[in-house]
Amino acid sequence: MRKIKLGMVGGGKGAFIGEIHRMAARLDDRYQIVAGALSSDPKIAAASAEENNIEKGRSYDSFEIMAEMEKNLANGIDAVAIVTPNHLHASVAKAFLKKNIHVICDKPITTELSDAEELEILTNDSGLIFAVTYNYSGYPMVRQAKEMIAAGKLGNIRIIQLEYAQDWLSESIEKTGQKQATWRTNPKYAGKGGAIGDIGTHAFHLAEFITGLKTSALLADLDSFVAGRTLDDNANILMQYNNGAKGMLWVSQVASGKENGLQVRVYGDKAGIEWSQEEPNQLRYSPLGDSTNIITRAGSAAGQLSNQASRLPSGHPEGFIEGFANIYRDTADLIVAHNIGRQMNSLVPNIQDGVRGIRFIEKVVASNQAGSIWLSLED
Amino acid sequence: MRKIKLGMVGGGKGAFIGEIHRMAARLDDRYQIVAGALSSDPKIAAASAEENNIEKGRSYDSFEIMAEMEKNLANGIDAVAIVTPNHLHASVAKAFLKKNIHVICDKPITTELSDAEELEILTNDSGLIFAVTYNYSGYPMVRQAKEMIAAGKLGNIRIIQLEYAQDWLSESIEKTGQKQATWRTNPKYAGKGGAIGDIGTHAFHLAEFITGLKTSALLADLDSFVAGRTLDDNANILMQYNNGAKGMLWVSQVASGKENGLQVRVYGDKAGIEWSQEEPNQLRYSPLGDSTNIITRAGSAAGQLSNQASRLPSGHPEGFIEGFANIYRDTADLIVAHNIGRQMNSLVPNIQDGVRGIRFIEKVVASNQAGSIWLSLED
Amino acid sequence: MRKIKLGMVGGGKGAFIGEIHRMAARLDDRYQIVAGALSSDPKIAAASAEENNIEKGRSYDSFEIMAEMEKNLANGIDAVAIVTPNHLHASVAKAFLKKNIHVICDKPITTELSDAEELEILTNDSGLIFAVTYNYSGYPMVRQAKEMIAAGKLGNIRIIQLEYAQDWLSESIEKTGQKQATWRTNPKYAGKGGAIGDIGTHAFHLAEFITGLKTSALLADLDSFVAGRTLDDNANILMQYNNGAKGMLWVSQVASGKENGLQVRVYGDKAGIEWSQEEPNQLRYSPLGDSTNIITRAGSAAGQLSNQASRLPSGHPEGFIEGFANIYRDTADLIVAHNIGRQMNSLVPNIQDGVRGIRFIEKVVASNQAGSIWLSLED
Amino acid sequence: MRKIKLGMVGGGKGAFIGEIHRMAARLDDRYQIVAGALSSDPKIAAASAEENNIEKGRSYDSFEIMAEMEKNLANGIDAVAIVTPNHLHASVAKAFLKKNIHVICDKPITTELSDAEELEILTNDSGLIFAVTYNYSGYPMVRQAKEMIAAGKLGNIRIIQLEYAQDWLSESIEKTGQKQATWRTNPKYAGKGGAIGDIGTHAFHLAEFITGLKTSALLADLDSFVAGRTLDDNANILMQYNNGAKGMLWVSQVASGKENGLQVRVYGDKAGIEWSQEEPNQLRYSPLGDSTNIITRAGSAAGQLSNQASRLPSGHPEGFIEGFANIYRDTADLIVAHNIGRQMNSLVPNIQDGVRGIRFIEKVVASNQAGSIWLSLED
Repeated sequence: MRKIKLGMVGGGKGAFIGEIHRMAARLDDRYQIVAGALSSDPKIAAASAEENNIEKGRSYDSFEIMAEMEKNLANGIDAVAIVTPNHLHASVAKAFLKKNIHVICDKPITTELSDAEELEILTNDSGLIFAVTYNYSGYPMVRQAKEMIAAGKLGNIRIIQLEYAQDWLSESIEKTGQKQATWRTNPKYAGKGGAIGDIGTHAFHLAEFITGLKTSALLADLDSFVAGRTLDDNANILMQYNNGAKGMLWVSQVASGKENGLQVRVYGDKAGIEWSQEEPNQLRYSPLGDSTNIITRAGSAAGQLSNQASRLPSGHPEGFIEGFANIYRDTADLIVAHNIGRQMNSLVPNIQDGVRGIRFIEKVVASNQAGSIWLSLED
Repeated sequence: MRKIKLGMVGGGKGAFIGEIHRMAARLDDRYQIVAGALSSDPKIAAASAEENNIEKGRSYDSFEIMAEMEKNLANGIDAVAIVTPNHLHASVAKAFLKKNIHVICDKPITTELSDAEELEILTNDSGLIFAVTYNYSGYPMVRQAKEMIAAGKLGNIRIIQLEYAQDWLSESIEKTGQKQATWRTNPKYAGKGGAIGDIGTHAFHLAEFITGLKTSALLADLDSFVAGRTLDDNANILMQYNNGAKGMLWVSQVASGKENGLQVRVYGDKAGIEWSQEEPNQLRYSPLGDSTNIITRAGSAAGQLSNQASRLPSGHPEGFIEGFANIYRDTADLIVAHNIGRQMNSLVPNIQDGVRGIRFIEKVVASNQAGSIWLSLED
Repeated sequence: MRKIKLGMVGGGKGAFIGEIHRMAARLDDRYQIVAGALSSDPKIAAASAEENNIEKGRSYDSFEIMAEMEKNLANGIDAVAIVTPNHLHASVAKAFLKKNIHVICDKPITTELSDAEELEILTNDSGLIFAVTYNYSGYPMVRQAKEMIAAGKLGNIRIIQLEYAQDWLSESIEKTGQKQATWRTNPKYAGKGGAIGDIGTHAFHLAEFITGLKTSALLADLDSFVAGRTLDDNANILMQYNNGAKGMLWVSQVASGKENGLQVRVYGDKAGIEWSQEEPNQLRYSPLGDSTNIITRAGSAAGQLSNQASRLPSGHPEGFIEGFANIYRDTADLIVAHNIGRQMNSLVPNIQDGVRGIRFIEKVVASNQAGSIWLSLED
Repeated sequence: MRKIKLGMVGGGKGAFIGEIHRMAARLDDRYQIVAGALSSDPKIAAASAEENNIEKGRSYDSFEIMAEMEKNLANGIDAVAIVTPNHLHASVAKAFLKKNIHVICDKPITTELSDAEELEILTNDSGLIFAVTYNYSGYPMVRQAKEMIAAGKLGNIRIIQLEYAQDWLSESIEKTGQKQATWRTNPKYAGKGGAIGDIGTHAFHLAEFITGLKTSALLADLDSFVAGRTLDDNANILMQYNNGAKGMLWVSQVASGKENGLQVRVYGDKAGIEWSQEEPNQLRYSPLGDSTNIITRAGSAAGQLSNQASRLPSGHPEGFIEGFANIYRDTADLIVAHNIGRQMNSLVPNIQDGVRGIRFIEKVVASNQAGSIWLSLED
């Protein structure tokens, strides 16, 4: 099977998410990383390229040059993975879309809504694939939840309880030069959202992905608990969904003891389900009037969607990388289908999902600034 | 040791909470139940009295007569336990307070704030004991949390996440004649609050009890998901505390799979703690920069407050009844101290806590009616 | 309802299990403790009696006198609870049985098999009730397991995995004068078994109680890991059951981190179940080819036996005392039935169960001494 | 960095473990799979090779030819991964060792002890790397446990409780043609051990890996519960270790509800630790006289060994593939060191570990046949 030729922008030494994208791309052997502008620092770019077995001639100092050059190569890249800080996503994505190269982009896809909407137009006009790595939607049991809800197992959804809590920003480590903290707490690089952008968008997307509902309105109360921090590090948000369901979303990066505590709980008039990212291989399913069932990945009660996203028998834990790799694998399928001109349905988060994430951030900030008022997400 | 002579109003056959009060009173042998107006139905009252070894002459058909008669008996009751539906609490409590009899009252203490405030005045003027059975504050590990926070283990509190979710009202069982459901969903008997009154007040109290903070403002979004129900069965509430901490409170009685899911999580700038009522014998303690500790009841790291509230060695689970019994035991200490004219500090929820609970309900309802606006709890 | 008049031997100040028996007896208001020989030290006996509201005239200095006196009283005790160290159980039980008084006896019932067999004859000849407080069989979910197995839910039982691990004897605290440790590690007071007698007998009984099977043979390897200790503090035992099922039993009092880790797991050809004493309100049920179900006490899937043993709605944890109290409540039923000459089936562990426990200890010790050989339990 | 050229024998379509080896090899980009004899069926071999991007010329019909050919190629393979059924391991390994090619071999390494010992001699004489994929030793928290014990955190080890339970062979699925079941229950392909060989060897190795102790003796009771099965599907084993520690090992493939239930628990005179494969990212650590700590992968209390084996921040679950990949990554380090003539310590299970696994199987079977007697593992 021909591998997809992948380029990468960002993700040089010292980065966090770049190596995860590379492991995800490698896991199923569907991609070959052949080009990169891995750092804005030419030395780091070159060293990182060598480390990743990218030929010298295809390690670039700038993404603009990379887009231009790769477009013209006979064996140029099919797709680019964008893993820079948020403020660069838009210009990088635009550059490659204009060269007819598919995009796999980290979230949030831009720092401004207008940029996101421009990317949406570009993507739609070009017909290219624009995959957003809301990677948690790649977990098999998340897809199991989606399938069960679509099949009516929960009945009418009434309540969606979301939380995504971490503790790594409990102190002002951005002042110590910690690279990840520095850019993620700086509006110049991160955009208008702190925790809500960095992790809140994941939870926001996951709720819509799993339930098939759309968030219709929200009301937010943001805090920056750590002295000197300008972006939010804690957010309490109320949600309304387009079927009348209600929900809450707690986002925090200052909750001591929480490592990567993403949790989704959905309750309908027939049953409830609960999923926690730190125990990703199981889904609690509680039909009204019956016992709670522990549905396991690849276990007896696992359905088609989760089984397609599984690689191992039940009891053999899959984790974050495997979930992330599902986004890559599904995107590979999309690209192959695109190349032969075939339409296909896909679970891969797309440009519309990306734009919704930016709108979410904007509305959360606006609601908070207005003193916690309900704002429609559609205005 | 002389036992406290206890009377009971409500709690006849078919009731739920009355028998719990009786087991709680018996557990430590500090009380003797000697009188009762156990039902407004004379036959049920008599049969229930016999079942509970109450002499015929001290089983009453009305609480007014009971208060009058017991006052005049040489060996009349020292205290009365009020376990009727909410709408009767106020008049019963008033009747006994006026006869100089201590009161142990279920929550919410009244259905109207004005009644609660009147009880507060009566209690303060009389100097009598008015214990409110916010029973969850009797759990040893809840007190462990309180002691740790008071000792500064968590530093400055930033975040308080509360939830109390059940599923027993997921369907309109009030229409089937189920007694508990019928009165709890009827404003005439329950007051203005549905789930927020029945269980939300517990969570509200617990947060203040554990942290020593006061709720300064709240913002609420209420729903009645079950068709035909007038009181709330689901509530999403944002909270502000008087030190600047923020929080959320989710209250639901329609969350399929939740049996009695009361959970309190508190995060400060030094550590976080988490406690869940369904696993009451442990407390998760997560100091920033260290591993999470599982502190167990009567275990190596248990402190004085929790040890005083424990009856068994670690690993021998204590439960709901034992926690409830701690309220009774501590109230017995208060009554003994009162009788000898001694002041004592106590963890027993008192009339002020009871009034705060009613104010909580009123403000939640008002905020929701106003479209989810912040309301001060002090106005 | 007339209360059963209960006497107690042992259980004075400083004892552990006596107060648990008293709380268990009080919880359901079926007993009244009216007499006692609570300590062999007359001063402690008197002080303990006063503390427990026992009249002076019915606090005795010796159990022999107590048996003699109570027999002759018009309102003498119906039953005696024996909560002394093990070596006294036999003579106390004999004294009361001979006076036609029912016995509730802690386990192990004797320190010698011959004594146990003598008690069995006495009991059978007298027709009296002899209840053994294998209290873990009083837990509702243990009875749920029993009911499910009896109903064939597990099919043919193949495997029984038992463990009962604690850590409180990890160091030689018996040398510090700790009262519980001192007698439990001394063969003079405890008998031939250390951990196997103190806690192993519980697990042994529980397996037979739950499955309805009988242990046919065992093979043991005992250790005394703490220097200077003569009785076992760790035991690894293989088991065979009378239907061909196999099992293992690990007993330890030196397993750091284990508080009261009693666990029973049973696997048949149709399903498996798992129950852990430290989370007593749930039972894991895993039908072959389906998801694991979390069956909860008083929850949707709870059956008759567990519901009869429950006092509270699901989600309101019951614990050790409530389980213990079920033994007392069921024994009260037995005594009432006896008094009116009616036979009744009962789940209360009886004298035969008590004798089996002593035989278990003897065979374990003998197998270990012989170098870990299989010994039939029936020889 | 030059990638190691890897060949593979076995692992064609329909196999289970082959694809896991390939994902593990790919994850860190240290290997390139360039040759294979993926099936004994030429058509399947060719199709599987194509699927894995192996050039036609290097897809072989027999491993003997493959060994011969690859030896002579300028860019021939550095190492071979052997993922056939057990009975072929020995001859394949021998063939490649003789051609001076490193071996990565699945467990158990042979079906006969004599074969294993011959491989040991061949390996030692050649100086080649022989890695055995006892993959569970690649989990970061397993290595965390090893490091803590080596550092004395547990004091003297007293007790080792092992279990490895599954349920997939609860019925005679080998009769339905299920490929994995068919060969694993057939002594011709699997060797003398059923469950004890397939999974018991993992637990056996893990105990020695973690504690640094050696098993000195064992005593076994084996069963084949499923009708018609000749190899064991359940094993109850007692263990002695060379420092006097004692243990139990339960191995089962007929325990309904167990998916891949490998659990290791070790108790010393200072602390205990517990690790469960299905929740691999955490380690419970219980120091005597203190609370249980939940040590998490890459968390605050994680040490050097586990951090070196981690790829992701804490809270981002790693799983089975990542643990497996650690064996591959460490083996890559060994091969690189070998190539430059440098000695290095390694955590990779080696030929001695492989031989011990075979000896374990033989002794277990012999002890059982002799009626469950203690057998020294060193005889």
